[in-house]
Amino acid sequence: MASLPVTLDTINPKVLECEYAVRGEIVILAQKLQEELKNNPNSQPFDEILYCNIGNPQSLAQQPITFFREVLALCDHPALLDKPESKILFSEDSIQRASQILGQIPGRATGAYSHSQGIKGLRDTIAAGIEARDGYPADPNDLFLTDGASPAVHMMMQLLIRSKNDGILCPIPQYPLYSASIALHGGTLVPYYLDEATGWGLEVSELEKQLKTAKSNGISVRALVVINPGNPTGQVLAKENQEQIVDFCKKEGLVLLADEVYQENVYVADKKFHSFKKVARSMGYGDNDICLVSFQSVSKGYYGECGKRGGYMEITGFKPDVRDQIYKLASVNLCSNISGQILASLIMKPPKEGDKSYESYVKEKNAILSSLARRAEKLEEVFNSLEGVTCNRAEGAMYLFPRLHLPEKAIEAAKGAGAAPDAFYARRLLNATGIVVVPGSGFKQVPGTWHFRCTILPQEDRIPAIVTRLTKFHKEFMDEFRS
Amino acid sequence: MASLPVTLDTINPKVLECEYAVRGEIVILAQKLQEELKNNPNSQPFDEILYCNIGNPQSLAQQPITFFREVLALCDHPALLDKPESKILFSEDSIQRASQILGQIPGRATGAYSHSQGIKGLRDTIAAGIEARDGYPADPNDLFLTDGASPAVHMMMQLLIRSKNDGILCPIPQYPLYSASIALHGGTLVPYYLDEATGWGLEVSELEKQLKTAKSNGISVRALVVINPGNPTGQVLAKENQEQIVDFCKKEGLVLLADEVYQENVYVADKKFHSFKKVARSMGYGDNDICLVSFQSVSKGYYGECGKRGGYMEITGFKPDVRDQIYKLASVNLCSNISGQILASLIMKPPKEGDKSYESYVKEKNAILSSLARRAEKLEEVFNSLEGVTCNRAEGAMYLFPRLHLPEKAIEAAKGAGAAPDAFYARRLLNATGIVVVPGSGFKQVPGTWHFRCTILPQEDRIPAIVTRLTKFHKEFMDEFRS
Repeated sequence: MASLPVTLDTINPKVLECEYAVRGEIVILAQKLQEELKNNPNSQPFDEILYCNIGNPQSLAQQPITFFREVLALCDHPALLDKPESKILFSEDSIQRASQILGQIPGRATGAYSHSQGIKGLRDTIAAGIEARDGYPADPNDLFLTDGASPAVHMMMQLLIRSKNDGILCPIPQYPLYSASIALHGGTLVPYYLDEATGWGLEVSELEKQLKTAKSNGISVRALVVINPGNPTGQVLAKENQEQIVDFCKKEGLVLLADEVYQENVYVADKKFHSFKKVARSMGYGDNDICLVSFQSVSKGYYGECGKRGGYMEITGFKPDVRDQIYKLASVNLCSNISGQILASLIMKPPKEGDKSYESYVKEKNAILSSLARRAEKLEEVFNSLEGVTCNRAEGAMYLFPRLHLPEKAIEAAKGAGAAPDAFYARRLLNATGIVVVPGSGFKQVPGTWHFRCTILPQEDRIPAIVTRLTKFHKEFMDEFRS
Repeated sequence: MASLPVTLDTINPKVLECEYAVRGEIVILAQKLQEELKNNPNSQPFDEILYCNIGNPQSLAQQPITFFREVLALCDHPALLDKPESKILFSEDSIQRASQILGQIPGRATGAYSHSQGIKGLRDTIAAGIEARDGYPADPNDLFLTDGASPAVHMMMQLLIRSKNDGILCPIPQYPLYSASIALHGGTLVPYYLDEATGWGLEVSELEKQLKTAKSNGISVRALVVINPGNPTGQVLAKENQEQIVDFCKKEGLVLLADEVYQENVYVADKKFHSFKKVARSMGYGDNDICLVSFQSVSKGYYGECGKRGGYMEITGFKPDVRDQIYKLASVNLCSNISGQILASLIMKPPKEGDKSYESYVKEKNAILSSLARRAEKLEEVFNSLEGVTCNRAEGAMYLFPRLHLPEKAIEAAKGAGAAPDAFYARRLLNATGIVVVPGSGFKQVPGTWHFRCTILPQEDRIPAIVTRLTKFHKEFMDEFRS
């Protein structure tokens, strides 16, 4: 008998190399503890696991926007549209919108594969939404609808990366989808460091320095990733800063990959989201000047519909023959799921003033966003109150990324346990409190600094208990290891 | 100004190499003609485009199973469950099933990311369905729910292919997802030819021969792809044949990648679908004997829910450390869409005798499957009646793959037009009749033979018109080129 043919020694080494800490070791431990709690509620010093590791709002009881779900249900079962009882169960404008959407789907077939870029009528709606947002035209043929933003990112990495000599400039800290995708496609991550001291500032001088270093190492840099608002860092870029970035990409011939999935998540009055496309167009740059990809998702914002796997990318500045290649890549997987496509059209064209659902929609949306802003502020304040912890504010997105100034003894203890100091801290935090955060090492960070990422997503009535548990744990941790 | 940085010369050459004819050149031409028809209904010698290129039943008016859509709508908008009007709009058991499913989803949150392998309760249901089908145990932890079968196939190719020296044995003709995925992951497709003369027979002697040739060329063959029922070839494997294939994989240390998405599509009384897992288990082979992956999808069968992008793979025989790597790959994309996950559980546990929806479910299912069987038989008969065309019967799946014995003059004319002879035929067919088929070259075929793939999916009332148009076109084509 031949032994089993697949071992760690015989699989694709790029798979081994790839890491994804958001669902990594700490989360696997959390799932184990949750199982133990289920079997024996007294087995742990806490009674539930609090998943602050991932931007998954509805897993922490955020409710979906009613109008969106009404439309989805009607599109799933169009027979409902003709029933008199539906007039009682559904809002008038959800029935209208569902009818309109079904009219845009060939044969009203929500169970059919669509065009590989997504249903044309839905892309028209999204393009109109982008135009309304930016004040510049958007072309539905520039849109590729995808199962969340992740497959769109993979598609661009697959297109751009030829070998280890191809580099992608990524912020550090970064969302680990980027490092994972670059590793899987065999490229090189070229880091540029965000400046923690200036609120995770993005300096073009740093981009220039890192580009130069990469070039001198024989790396051909293909693209620049910018996450705005930032993940895990929460900063919102100023328009002037974005203009500098656009000019840098134009000058250096880089594709600008703009992760704009948190565009609705801005919590501070002095900052505003500007899409990179709007910024580039406002500088007078068109399709012949810069290659620009904007990623958007139904998973974030006030909607938080992670489980629906909807999203899109808008690509501009690509020549037709290259676009044909992107189309081919999309077509190999046929299309993204139709419910996700419909939802992507809904978030880019929510109810407007005068619509029957408008009031309830605005109320639901504002309640979520204002609560997120309060939670961001509260948790930032708490982190900053802890001994040896500093934390920039979350101007946007869904995360805080506090820095741990750990005592030498803690770092030694981590070494003894075979873990990075922040992973050591996160494991201890989980075991003591049931709170799940992701160690900074999962996002990369300035060597010798330690952080963790914590979402701002637990509901407000849970925050006091979290603060109490966290504060108590941290004090005990410092007492144990203080030099 | 630097010129735009992305050109065909600077993208990943694997992307250039990849081909996907199911949505290739002929389909792009069809979309163009459809647009022309829309603008000018008299612009073509036909009044509509008939898409027979793709297994997309609901795009050709196949209706979804009512029970499935009821459950999906209720899960999308759970507030419906408590409304008295819902008792009028929904079947009793759809309400029960939706409640049960929501109870299996943590926090009833259909908008949350799930476990990266899919919601545990739904995997339990699917595992029970596999057990009921096969009579052998299935483990929910062996299941990975995916957005259709395609991403699952990519995931396995990504795992197994390290370089051009890694080969995957694929049937010829094959479904081009395989050739595309192998090309994108930089591996080598090792062909084995199905024997058209014996109804697309799969001979182990042919597998052995091709494996030997590949080895002598320095190729390390990692896996064998078997599509059963066959796509595009429609044959259903006999159990004895499957046993030989299992023994071959075991002996040669190959992963058996079993594409079983057409398991519900068997149309002939003398053939029956057996899963490879059942066959392997019935031979006494367990997890330590053979690495086996079975792909299933909600897109095919009698359900045909392509747009929902649901599916799963069941992996057995992989050691825990390797499974961890597959889990990591799944987790980079977080999870598949929840509606698709729910639907995957529904197709593996449809209404059973005694349930309120059972009768209507059986009626809908049988109507679809018996009609598909009649269409397969009718179209096979028509193809065989054409001059110079031979066609094996479709025992299963959704396609016929007739062979064109073209006159020399037609082959010359194709050469003059810069096209493969079957692509030339398919283009002429489309321009004359609006019928879209895929040239055999898109699936690969024995060199010097020419085929096309045509689905059996047009509704029965449309078949006579198709037959008339096809027969007339073919006669005129042969009249034009007959030597």
